[in-house]
Amino acid sequence: MTRPRRWSTAVLDTQKVGGMAVVHGDQGFLLDGNGVMFSREWLKHLDLPVVSEHGIGHFDGEPVYLLVLEKSVPVEGAGWQTLRQFMMGDDADVYQVLAYAAQISTWAREHRFCGNCGRRAEQVPGERAMHCAHCELRYYPRISPSMIVLITRGDEVLLARSPRFVTGVYSTLAGFAEPGESAEDCVRREVMEEVQLKVRNIQYKGSQCWPFPHSMMLGFHAEYESGEIVPQADEIEDAQWFSIHDMPTLPASRSIARYLIELYLAQRSGAAEPVLPG
Amino acid sequence: MTRPRRWSTAVLDTQKVGGMAVVHGDQGFLLDGNGVMFSREWLKHLDLPVVSEHGIGHFDGEPVYLLVLEKSVPVEGAGWQTLRQFMMGDDADVYQVLAYAAQISTWAREHRFCGNCGRRAEQVPGERAMHCAHCELRYYPRISPSMIVLITRGDEVLLARSPRFVTGVYSTLAGFAEPGESAEDCVRREVMEEVQLKVRNIQYKGSQCWPFPHSMMLGFHAEYESGEIVPQADEIEDAQWFSIHDMPTLPASRSIARYLIELYLAQRSGAAEPVLPG
Repeated sequence: MTRPRRWSTAVLDTQKVGGMAVVHGDQGFLLDGNGVMFSREWLKHLDLPVVSEHGIGHFDGEPVYLLVLEKSVPVEGAGWQTLRQFMMGDDADVYQVLAYAAQISTWAREHRFCGNCGRRAEQVPGERAMHCAHCELRYYPRISPSMIVLITRGDEVLLARSPRFVTGVYSTLAGFAEPGESAEDCVRREVMEEVQLKVRNIQYKGSQCWPFPHSMMLGFHAEYESGEIVPQADEIEDAQWFSIHDMPTLPASRSIARYLIELYLAQRSGAAEPVLPG
Repeated sequence: MTRPRRWSTAVLDTQKVGGMAVVHGDQGFLLDGNGVMFSREWLKHLDLPVVSEHGIGHFDGEPVYLLVLEKSVPVEGAGWQTLRQFMMGDDADVYQVLAYAAQISTWAREHRFCGNCGRRAEQVPGERAMHCAHCELRYYPRISPSMIVLITRGDEVLLARSPRFVTGVYSTLAGFAEPGESAEDCVRREVMEEVQLKVRNIQYKGSQCWPFPHSMMLGFHAEYESGEIVPQADEIEDAQWFSIHDMPTLPASRSIARYLIELYLAQRSGAAEPVLPG
């Protein structure tokens, strides 16, 4: 039995009073000893620089709203914590709420104006959309499909380091899809660009929301076909074949990158397969 | 052996002279008896309402540019044809060029201004990005991940009609991903919203660029689990279980929807599996 989800999304009417709210600014989410959900009415008495407000869903049946701030400001008795810190924390249900809220916040900031004419855009009541009345264009939250792939060659796996990674960590290859591609085209192109290898037998393994800031990660396994590793300048600091018996420091345990690696290790050793975190 | 691709994307310098160009307006692409690729220098002598120009790639080794027009205008000896007509046509290589060009055109129009501040955005040289110098934000082409799913129950398949479809055509269910979801979450949600059924054993079958205007279609198969069909108001005009031996009119042969259906028919009958068009 899967546990019922505590969080479900909805487009709630911001004209209604009451409910809880999370608060997002440039330093992350507002947090105090009771967590990230505050009484919405209490928040309205604070003098926060609110850019926009959104009714985003229900948590344990309670309506949840989001206040998007121009920037994070000091609030007595509370502080700010980044989404990544919440991801590394142990409350997966609250992380789901915040992962969604962060994406709505990014979308709300970046579509205040119509990209076609530069005029003000307005929230559409009852829909998660911004609308330009002049151009008759609707702007929905952006989700960027991204491919992530574990390449293997028998007992070896290809892992690489971006200069942005924590020291010592190696992970799978990943990159954003481009217009015109299928997911599989993207995997082949990314692998060629990043390490100049050809791969074959590209197999989909699962997907995960990756809200930094708005990716949908599509996870693949591929077998090495041919070529010698040539790391892409600026993007790939180092790429190596690692024996499955002698692995480097791996990415965060809740990531699909880690899942793809552990899935392969489990398959090679005959151990039980891991479960991809939601 | 797969045939080498005639088309590859690239970010070409628009300051250089020469090459070919395709022209995109609100009525589609400019077309004459020689096709859709015109001498770029010749086009510059026409008085076209050009919004922006982009170097988009190489076709048979020749540099290809894109002229984005404010709107389609009459051009002597030439006419306009929509991307859908090119998709239904028989030149898959040219369709690839135009599918990419149409997405670049949509992106270029919809990011002329920064959505965060309303100021003018500028093309970044050497990158497919618009940039707002004031906000330090980059806008890349939007790709909207969308799920499409064939639900089956033994020898029956669930197909539905949207009010937007050509008369008589039934297809698989489909919808856009929302922030916070995995691809599989999206399949479950869409199926529940559109027909109120539960599904199980969700299996990825392949993906396809669907440039109307900028989807990446992720194709799945799922088995019926429980529930009675209740079509979603406004979205689903009719939904039915069809016997695989008595099928309605199906969607276009180049679509992933058609592929998912034909794949299942082939599997049930033991025939050779179809190939998903690129």
